Amino acid sequence: MKHPYYRPSALNQAKLIQYLEDINERRYFTNNGPLVGELKERLEAYLGVKNLLLVSSGTVALQVAYKALGVSGNIITTPLSFVATASAYKWLNKELCFSDIDLETLNLDPAHVTDVVALNANDLVVATHLYGNPCDIDSFKRLSLRFKNKTIYDASHAFATRYGGKCVLSEGDASVISFHATKLFHTIEGGGIVFASHEDYQRAEKMINFGFDHQGQVIEIGINAKMSEFHAAVGLTMLDDIESMIDQRCEMVEHYLTCLAPYDVEFPKRQEGTDRCSPSYMPLILNSVKERDCLHKMLFEEGIETRKYFEGLINNLAAYSNQPLCLPNAEVVENRLLCLPFYVDLDSADISYICERVVAALDEIRSKA
Amino acid sequence: MKHPYYRPSALNQAKLIQYLEDINERRYFTNNGPLVGELKERLEAYLGVKNLLLVSSGTVALQVAYKALGVSGNIITTPLSFVATASAYKWLNKELCFSDIDLETLNLDPAHVTDVVALNANDLVVATHLYGNPCDIDSFKRLSLRFKNKTIYDASHAFATRYGGKCVLSEGDASVISFHATKLFHTIEGGGIVFASHEDYQRAEKMINFGFDHQGQVIEIGINAKMSEFHAAVGLTMLDDIESMIDQRCEMVEHYLTCLAPYDVEFPKRQEGTDRCSPSYMPLILNSVKERDCLHKMLFEEGIETRKYFEGLINNLAAYSNQPLCLPNAEVVENRLLCLPFYVDLDSADISYICERVVAALDEIRSKA
Repeated sequence: MKHPYYRPSALNQAKLIQYLEDINERRYFTNNGPLVGELKERLEAYLGVKNLLLVSSGTVALQVAYKALGVSGNIITTPLSFVATASAYKWLNKELCFSDIDLETLNLDPAHVTDVVALNANDLVVATHLYGNPCDIDSFKRLSLRFKNKTIYDASHAFATRYGGKCVLSEGDASVISFHATKLFHTIEGGGIVFASHEDYQRAEKMINFGFDHQGQVIEIGINAKMSEFHAAVGLTMLDDIESMIDQRCEMVEHYLTCLAPYDVEFPKRQEGTDRCSPSYMPLILNSVKERDCLHKMLFEEGIETRKYFEGLINNLAAYSNQPLCLPNAEVVENRLLCLPFYVDLDSADISYICERVVAALDEIRSKA
Repeated sequence: MKHPYYRPSALNQAKLIQYLEDINERRYFTNNGPLVGELKERLEAYLGVKNLLLVSSGTVALQVAYKALGVSGNIITTPLSFVATASAYKWLNKELCFSDIDLETLNLDPAHVTDVVALNANDLVVATHLYGNPCDIDSFKRLSLRFKNKTIYDASHAFATRYGGKCVLSEGDASVISFHATKLFHTIEGGGIVFASHEDYQRAEKMINFGFDHQGQVIEIGINAKMSEFHAAVGLTMLDDIESMIDQRCEMVEHYLTCLAPYDVEFPKRQEGTDRCSPSYMPLILNSVKERDCLHKMLFEEGIETRKYFEGLINNLAAYSNQPLCLPNAEVVENRLLCLPFYVDLDSADISYICERVVAALDEIRSKA
């Protein structure tokens, strides 16, 4: 494939070898080691957040955040996300309530949440910042002020997103992020949780180590969700270059938009109040499922791999819904989304070429329609 | 501390750097990469097992094995294990039934399981091979033939254990193992599941990747429980030297037993039919809680760190039991177990010295009793 959908960047080998030698010298491989501590501190400083807990994956981060918040009522979430947002909770044998999205941003719409359930203090709203575009955080805040419900943001797309002058990870009772190798900032496998409350952070800290407190007594129900020193080392090497990586990717987004803007191609709308969207995806909203599928196929034949991200709605998966749902906005965009190649090996000539082929393919598809 | 309880062995740095360079060259960091494939194949060949699934931790291995077996009835397990054996299931919001142990081997006693619940085909027995000593596998087999219940062995202590002429990991509907850095064989963080059935293996393979099948459709409820290429590389370097590591540790056990045998010190009894116990721990059964605690303290003061492994019974933890239980055998040994230092840096002079101090301390404690 000439232009794959994604290709991770190479890591800084020299730095990584040095970390590896240090780790081996210390023989301290995991269990909240010094590199995990260093990564936590540096990420907190870089992002301007407190109470960041590093864990072994984004999925387990969603579970730990939920358990640490201590809610046991309804979990209301979006039908339009990577399946992990929902599967993390289904794995815990919890049922989910799906609420409709905003048709412009494609994020969970706070105005629809109370249509689905009568919210109370034991309920949890799990919203996402789709493609790095923040959801309507201010309205979710008003919701939680009124109903006392808890809010978790799955910010896995939104490492570099800034909203209202600050890092979006500081929002909600907890913000959760994946540090998987496909993400802008990563630790190969890993994740993080930023808690609003230090008490919740401390509870979660025990939960990711089998529930042990500092005296070695089990006082919470816990699992092993610790980040290893090797994975933390990868994060440390990435963090050295993070600003230039973000700048480069912001330029890529600009270049894509400049090339495609003159044509009849739709994009998710940017949420008002956003200072910066995390530049990680280049999503298009096509006119129909058929148009999306044809474009995907035609580009593939020309050596351009795109991704049907997301294919379908989570509530329509057999295992995820126990009742028919009416989510008119989500159904409008269902199976009409397609993400174009996005990774730092793509130079501006590549992006211009991809856009040219997108436009040519759409012209051909639409002329036949 | 002159003699810590545990110190992981250093890794083979030259080999690990080569793997790191290869990984970076391929830019294939996780998601069932080539090194995970190689480690799976080499471990299957070395252990003589089939259907081995590598995962991100031993805790998640217990969860995935349970979900893949498709049972939803009672989970009957031992009160005497590392808390993870139970917490993996409590994390999924499942209740546990604790059944009594055998007083000689300290493993779950198959004769007592049906005292706790009337077993049926929807139930699961989770037994362990404590300190690498296999439980009464033949009796558990008869139980499952009679009641059609499923059996998972948490074999986290038993990487090198051989029973009835084969690797103990081939037993049960699934055998689960932790590859945490404190284990004989490890991948820093990681775990494995050996399934008896290839169908269960295939279901589990989807579960550890969000439930996706090979066509990219979500057909199971799943999470991310994948082992990274870095962690797999650690396993590959360890596997090259595994036989000499096991031999060395078997000699350590022999040396400990030879030194302590002339004295009045009790050890767990070896299960009949065992060809080899995995040499990972040096547990003592002391005469009383007070004797155990005094020995722990006196050795600590002499620079010898021991571990109260295990401290208490899981069913007595506040979060783990919802009713008073009568487990007379488990209560006999509760808080009387102490593990001596065990890692390959200890030479025979160190072990002789530790044993000398154990005997001297016990003499002193008992003379005052």
